[in-house]
Amino acid sequence: MNLLQPTRVEDSAYIVEGVDIKEARNTCLLFSPKDSSLSSGALANILAIFKKHDINLVHIESRSSLRVPGYEFFVEADGKSGALGKAIEDVKEQCSYFNIISRDYKDNATAVPWFPRRIRDLDRFANQILSYGSELDADHPGFTDPEYRKRRKYFADIAYNYKHGEPLPHVDYTKEEIETWGIIFRNCKIPNKKTLLVEFLNLTKLYKTHACREYNHVFPLLVDNCGFREDNIPQLEDVSNFLRDCTGFTLRPVAGLLSSRDFLAGLAFRVFHSTQYIRHPSKPMYTPEPDVCHELMGHVPLFADPAFAQFSQEIGLASLGAPDDYIEKLSTIFWFTVEYGVCRQEGELKAYGAGLLSSYGELEYCLTDKPQLKDFEPEVTGVTKYPITQFQPLYYVADSFETAKEKTIKFANSIPRPFGVRYNAYTQSVEVLDSKPQISNLMDNINSEFQILQNAVAKLRV
Amino acid sequence: MNLLQPTRVEDSAYIVEGVDIKEARNTCLLFSPKDSSLSSGALANILAIFKKHDINLVHIESRSSLRVPGYEFFVEADGKSGALGKAIEDVKEQCSYFNIISRDYKDNATAVPWFPRRIRDLDRFANQILSYGSELDADHPGFTDPEYRKRRKYFADIAYNYKHGEPLPHVDYTKEEIETWGIIFRNCKIPNKKTLLVEFLNLTKLYKTHACREYNHVFPLLVDNCGFREDNIPQLEDVSNFLRDCTGFTLRPVAGLLSSRDFLAGLAFRVFHSTQYIRHPSKPMYTPEPDVCHELMGHVPLFADPAFAQFSQEIGLASLGAPDDYIEKLSTIFWFTVEYGVCRQEGELKAYGAGLLSSYGELEYCLTDKPQLKDFEPEVTGVTKYPITQFQPLYYVADSFETAKEKTIKFANSIPRPFGVRYNAYTQSVEVLDSKPQISNLMDNINSEFQILQNAVAKLRV
Amino acid sequence: MNLLQPTRVEDSAYIVEGVDIKEARNTCLLFSPKDSSLSSGALANILAIFKKHDINLVHIESRSSLRVPGYEFFVEADGKSGALGKAIEDVKEQCSYFNIISRDYKDNATAVPWFPRRIRDLDRFANQILSYGSELDADHPGFTDPEYRKRRKYFADIAYNYKHGEPLPHVDYTKEEIETWGIIFRNCKIPNKKTLLVEFLNLTKLYKTHACREYNHVFPLLVDNCGFREDNIPQLEDVSNFLRDCTGFTLRPVAGLLSSRDFLAGLAFRVFHSTQYIRHPSKPMYTPEPDVCHELMGHVPLFADPAFAQFSQEIGLASLGAPDDYIEKLSTIFWFTVEYGVCRQEGELKAYGAGLLSSYGELEYCLTDKPQLKDFEPEVTGVTKYPITQFQPLYYVADSFETAKEKTIKFANSIPRPFGVRYNAYTQSVEVLDSKPQISNLMDNINSEFQILQNAVAKLRV
Amino acid sequence: MNLLQPTRVEDSAYIVEGVDIKEARNTCLLFSPKDSSLSSGALANILAIFKKHDINLVHIESRSSLRVPGYEFFVEADGKSGALGKAIEDVKEQCSYFNIISRDYKDNATAVPWFPRRIRDLDRFANQILSYGSELDADHPGFTDPEYRKRRKYFADIAYNYKHGEPLPHVDYTKEEIETWGIIFRNCKIPNKKTLLVEFLNLTKLYKTHACREYNHVFPLLVDNCGFREDNIPQLEDVSNFLRDCTGFTLRPVAGLLSSRDFLAGLAFRVFHSTQYIRHPSKPMYTPEPDVCHELMGHVPLFADPAFAQFSQEIGLASLGAPDDYIEKLSTIFWFTVEYGVCRQEGELKAYGAGLLSSYGELEYCLTDKPQLKDFEPEVTGVTKYPITQFQPLYYVADSFETAKEKTIKFANSIPRPFGVRYNAYTQSVEVLDSKPQISNLMDNINSEFQILQNAVAKLRV
Repeated sequence: MNLLQPTRVEDSAYIVEGVDIKEARNTCLLFSPKDSSLSSGALANILAIFKKHDINLVHIESRSSLRVPGYEFFVEADGKSGALGKAIEDVKEQCSYFNIISRDYKDNATAVPWFPRRIRDLDRFANQILSYGSELDADHPGFTDPEYRKRRKYFADIAYNYKHGEPLPHVDYTKEEIETWGIIFRNCKIPNKKTLLVEFLNLTKLYKTHACREYNHVFPLLVDNCGFREDNIPQLEDVSNFLRDCTGFTLRPVAGLLSSRDFLAGLAFRVFHSTQYIRHPSKPMYTPEPDVCHELMGHVPLFADPAFAQFSQEIGLASLGAPDDYIEKLSTIFWFTVEYGVCRQEGELKAYGAGLLSSYGELEYCLTDKPQLKDFEPEVTGVTKYPITQFQPLYYVADSFETAKEKTIKFANSIPRPFGVRYNAYTQSVEVLDSKPQISNLMDNINSEFQILQNAVAKLRV
Repeated sequence: MNLLQPTRVEDSAYIVEGVDIKEARNTCLLFSPKDSSLSSGALANILAIFKKHDINLVHIESRSSLRVPGYEFFVEADGKSGALGKAIEDVKEQCSYFNIISRDYKDNATAVPWFPRRIRDLDRFANQILSYGSELDADHPGFTDPEYRKRRKYFADIAYNYKHGEPLPHVDYTKEEIETWGIIFRNCKIPNKKTLLVEFLNLTKLYKTHACREYNHVFPLLVDNCGFREDNIPQLEDVSNFLRDCTGFTLRPVAGLLSSRDFLAGLAFRVFHSTQYIRHPSKPMYTPEPDVCHELMGHVPLFADPAFAQFSQEIGLASLGAPDDYIEKLSTIFWFTVEYGVCRQEGELKAYGAGLLSSYGELEYCLTDKPQLKDFEPEVTGVTKYPITQFQPLYYVADSFETAKEKTIKFANSIPRPFGVRYNAYTQSVEVLDSKPQISNLMDNINSEFQILQNAVAKLRV
Repeated sequence: MNLLQPTRVEDSAYIVEGVDIKEARNTCLLFSPKDSSLSSGALANILAIFKKHDINLVHIESRSSLRVPGYEFFVEADGKSGALGKAIEDVKEQCSYFNIISRDYKDNATAVPWFPRRIRDLDRFANQILSYGSELDADHPGFTDPEYRKRRKYFADIAYNYKHGEPLPHVDYTKEEIETWGIIFRNCKIPNKKTLLVEFLNLTKLYKTHACREYNHVFPLLVDNCGFREDNIPQLEDVSNFLRDCTGFTLRPVAGLLSSRDFLAGLAFRVFHSTQYIRHPSKPMYTPEPDVCHELMGHVPLFADPAFAQFSQEIGLASLGAPDDYIEKLSTIFWFTVEYGVCRQEGELKAYGAGLLSSYGELEYCLTDKPQLKDFEPEVTGVTKYPITQFQPLYYVADSFETAKEKTIKFANSIPRPFGVRYNAYTQSVEVLDSKPQISNLMDNINSEFQILQNAVAKLRV
Repeated sequence: MNLLQPTRVEDSAYIVEGVDIKEARNTCLLFSPKDSSLSSGALANILAIFKKHDINLVHIESRSSLRVPGYEFFVEADGKSGALGKAIEDVKEQCSYFNIISRDYKDNATAVPWFPRRIRDLDRFANQILSYGSELDADHPGFTDPEYRKRRKYFADIAYNYKHGEPLPHVDYTKEEIETWGIIFRNCKIPNKKTLLVEFLNLTKLYKTHACREYNHVFPLLVDNCGFREDNIPQLEDVSNFLRDCTGFTLRPVAGLLSSRDFLAGLAFRVFHSTQYIRHPSKPMYTPEPDVCHELMGHVPLFADPAFAQFSQEIGLASLGAPDDYIEKLSTIFWFTVEYGVCRQEGELKAYGAGLLSSYGELEYCLTDKPQLKDFEPEVTGVTKYPITQFQPLYYVADSFETAKEKTIKFANSIPRPFGVRYNAYTQSVEVLDSKPQISNLMDNINSEFQILQNAVAKLRV
């Protein structure tokens, strides 16, 4: 790859639609028995039904129901075993509330496509990756480099074995890896070095004029707090902790290619699945897939901005349990915003998409008069086709992250789902809102927030 | 101790007012320089001031300001070093926003009493404990038992070394410890065993009639999910995870006696400081201080209830930065609610305080016509004197946890503090609300919640 | 009557429960035909049903439905004619929404007690008065005075013929009437006149110390704007216009005794039914029934206070369609608040009830230590018995009008009604909330208010 | 005018910008004296100042202040008299709150352009009309018809003398006038009559396909309730009462041409200034100015729709006290929405603007592919030039009235005014929000509405 050639990152790598996930078998049932007292043996009765139909339950949980007085059970059935359909029919009869969330939703009209309900459910994604991180295509710059492939396996294994709640493993990057990072970092932020490449000298100027306000605001904080330096590849753990302080976003290592559905679901929890490896040293300005440079220099600064964090989460929340065609639309929206988004700030266009911010060439190009510009409108944006191997011919422009968020929420409300969703940051879980008691609860919460507001206004010195 | 004698637990152990905390030295400064761009060297200028006055900064953090455009710095000064007062004066001049949060607030009229702003700041409490967990009074049942004292030190060390984010250490309880637990557990929940003590046979009946609805609702879930069994002392980690799923409350081991201020502050983060050791086996029905039986059987079930969790957190939030006299009032409110609270449910009185629920004798007594009853009113309740070595002569009755919460919020609003507080569960931090931009932010959040509500209502089948 | 004897006003005159109202015959039906297009002849079909059953419809209205797509009809049937029950059955079958509001609710389990839905429906009350204003009891001071009785008839006729929207008729009070007013007014507010009665000299002091803050705040405005002067009986029209400017309350002349249900219903519209005549000149300090002195000096000042106006309206809204026993409770609450309420202001007791503020004797008495005091709690207050011919032995104390309002709203929510109510000040009508579209609408309104709030905060100079 | 030629109505008649209003002299001062007790003589002091400077006060009002503890005075000065500027300076010094609202704002940098604060202030507009209704241009069809001019004067006089609160005068329309109405009405709604004009037969079809859903929904109700019939010109009073029931909108007769500022201000109160006369009989399908046909058939149906009513009011509220250039923008927005608006409903374009709905020709034209269409965006729409003597070449399309309202509110928030505004439907007045107490008040109101919501949801049967 010619270093003078504009670079770009293909995030499409982890946004893939409609792939048939072979191993997916988990079907989750959430139900409240009509006779919902635990002691009355209601659960025992129900478990007996599963046994009768030879269903292995790989997980059983009892909780207080938010929907009906009494309890709620959450069981996960191994779909490979027994007559699940019949068991479900039988159990349903005993229940006042019954819900199926399943990876096998295509064969089951009443099932909602599976989605994680608790942040720790993201651990399940590891088994669902579409390709392992160490499998390289023949045209990958590192395809013929056994050392690099070994290293990639090392990173994939870290991610594969990672469990929610653990610290993100610290990685000792090699001297060569740090040099690769340094080239890109210097390129991006440090202009005043003698260098053979004229463009390097202009890149910082480019950021000052081409990156959005939020990017330029956050970057110095990453230098201060996370070791964003030419001679240091920041540790995901440090970055993740910094983001958590700022907006509650966290990073999570990913072992390979996730389905769009899974990748977007992570955002609902303010979790961003991040690579940890770095591109092949032979082509520092090019990578056919996201790497740690793309994540840290493209994505991370924006996730530290509260409004952008909310916007990203809204895309994630919209995706939970959505039909496949909406997953595709949301992936496209993600593409045209988080990856390739352009916004208007004080009358000028600025880039905020990570794909732009990590590519000198496209960053420069995107604000010229060559590409077409349209206002971001989720309904329209979501059905726009885009090329993944060249500069985008069309960018969607957001007025502000707040407005983009509001439009996304409105779009989300149009998704055919029989429930609302809400993220509960206390319990780190997604609430499926489909009952009056939950709505009453939500109103109580709003009331409490409103009281905090009233008190804060009362305390305000005017 | 006579087993037939009513037992009670002295939680006063960790609720102590006005103790002079010797080692407390941290003074935290939160400020925004007038010229708040990081790159302009503003921070450097300010750090130079501290250096000039020989102040060691033990912690420096730069963040985006929520109050003014630009950045905010959070530094922690070692008060033992240099001329802090003069340094503060000099720094203040350079700042558009300036706030002091200090353990030394008594000597500093402009300082707000120190409080944790992030959940990980609770790690600081370990150094502030008023007495180490292994120091026993002469009249403690285990005072002359070197094995027990050694065991107590083991538990205290676990807690002392614990850091936020780590799993709560698993403890292998001894056979003798499990037996002690079994006596109490059986006593509390398992009546149908042959036993010499008649009262045991009646205890479950007592719960059915004397404990509040929420307690009886949650207990079976603890059996199912956390191993609440006669032959097993539940692990704090399992219980904490269960609570987090239910309400976001978590447990944190405590190495000894915390000041009231610190203990209450934990509640603001939905963190309950819990002992992990068990009482001395010689007197299974008596303990002069909280132990794991009191925590698990008295406190834990209620923290799984959303309304109670909110109520408890409100007490905690009210305490942050409050003057000493209000800390005392809030401790008293805690005493008369979380420890010794009685409530009215469907026209009948029920106990919900942990001190009652873990004492057969006082539980029975509290609903007789012997004690005096008054409606819970924070202003009045907070200034009521109470004995700690006998049954309470007076109980305060709550109509519901929601009402108690609302009253506590109103009381909190009367506390003289120049700011409002709000817990941000995403960032696990307390927001000090004292500026218009924060209020605008909060209004945006309420707006978002309201949109979720509107969508959920739209989805509701009627 | 001895002028030195404490005086009091019997407002019970217009608060009477459980009276059998002979002439009440109106039964209102509110319904949406299943086929709700007007042009399809749905209404014609339904009107044919009424005709078939010989029902005279005295009023027919078609409106857009807020509950279902399509239209809603409001008809008023003359219950004396035909077979109403059968007609209702037949009509019901054709409808997707059906509601009966009837004065004959006692014989009709499915009917909601009649209440006015539009402010102009208050015109109906004139026909429902329990006794005409000119009928005096044998012990009335004016019983044997033919001139006074004639005058009373004059006032009653004005009120009887009054229709909503008309200006309140101007009355030329006689010299004698103005003198009676002057005695009371002087007594109440003007102390520094030579007078034989020592108490007069102290009355202003009494107000300063005994009346609530709101009363003392508003009174000078009434002097300025409405001609509250010793030599002038203010015109109801002027007072009503002033109140409308302040809080939207208006006065409406009343021809005689209203039932409690009707009187309270007026408050839901912020309409206060006011007498316009003055007491008999023979006993200026005594009146067995409310008169213009009691209204103007007792009630009017408080209705100019926004919080009190809201509180009063809440009582009214709570009464709409409520069962008879709740009407009685609400009347009692009205008695103990609007008529005889006492409140706590900056640690001191103050009177705000009109019965107190228009009686020198009871005003002085009520703040002594003779009467019993209890906190205002609607559930308790509403079932308290009270004497109407002597000073109250018990007063209920409100913390503030806001708190009293909140408590009243909570009490109102406990009233068994299958709907919520909301006053729409734009359409001057009561909305019966019993459908999801209305709830969505209300949420839109709240949203709009919230946006106004956000903008106002943004504009606030801090 | 050829009847076959498409007709259109020029509403520009009453929307005129930048006209120098000669007679405008009123300057209103709203202020709170620092020493704000009425009895202390503060007002007297201030009135003395005005007297000193020879200022005639034409109106004085004292009210309770919503901004500061104490009172607020509202005085209206006759600008022609004395040294107003100096008087203002002197008064200002004595005040804690001071605000100038003036028709002479162009010469007074600190003054806000005059606007009505109470609904009855709209009576002031009569003196401000730019041309009297009986003055006809030379090319007016009735210019040479003395009878018609006399009739026009009759209508103008009615409006000129009209005062808020009075019933709208009933008009006995002549046989000829009713015939003119009949031609247009028949044309619009009654197709199945034998008529020589083929187009008439198609007009109803045109409405069914071209008018928005709301129009077609409301029209039958106007037939039922307001006598919209071929042989009857509906009385404004009946129409106004119907609108008040539906949305709180009312009609008010207008004697001539209002300035844009005044006309828009009416909308803030949900008051629509309506003509009452009818076009000249010689050209029933043409009128160079709005007439009763345009009002009743174009505007009235939409004002009965709650969402449209809110949208219209928002334009009005946005205009209050706005700078002249924003008045022009808002007039343009009014033009492109209320007069010539097109909307999208279930994927199809529909007309909702009164200018379209009262013109067969432009109604048909507007949904063809001839005109240009753009999305309604207030910032853009507000600065678009438009012709007034031909069909519009460009229409702005609204997604829904709710969305249009929200966008208008956002636009309104960008108007440079040092305050927020809110319409209080109880007091029928505009609240100028510029203080913290008012914001607290507004929060209380929202709280109350929210409690109504919570109760309504609780009552909802699901």
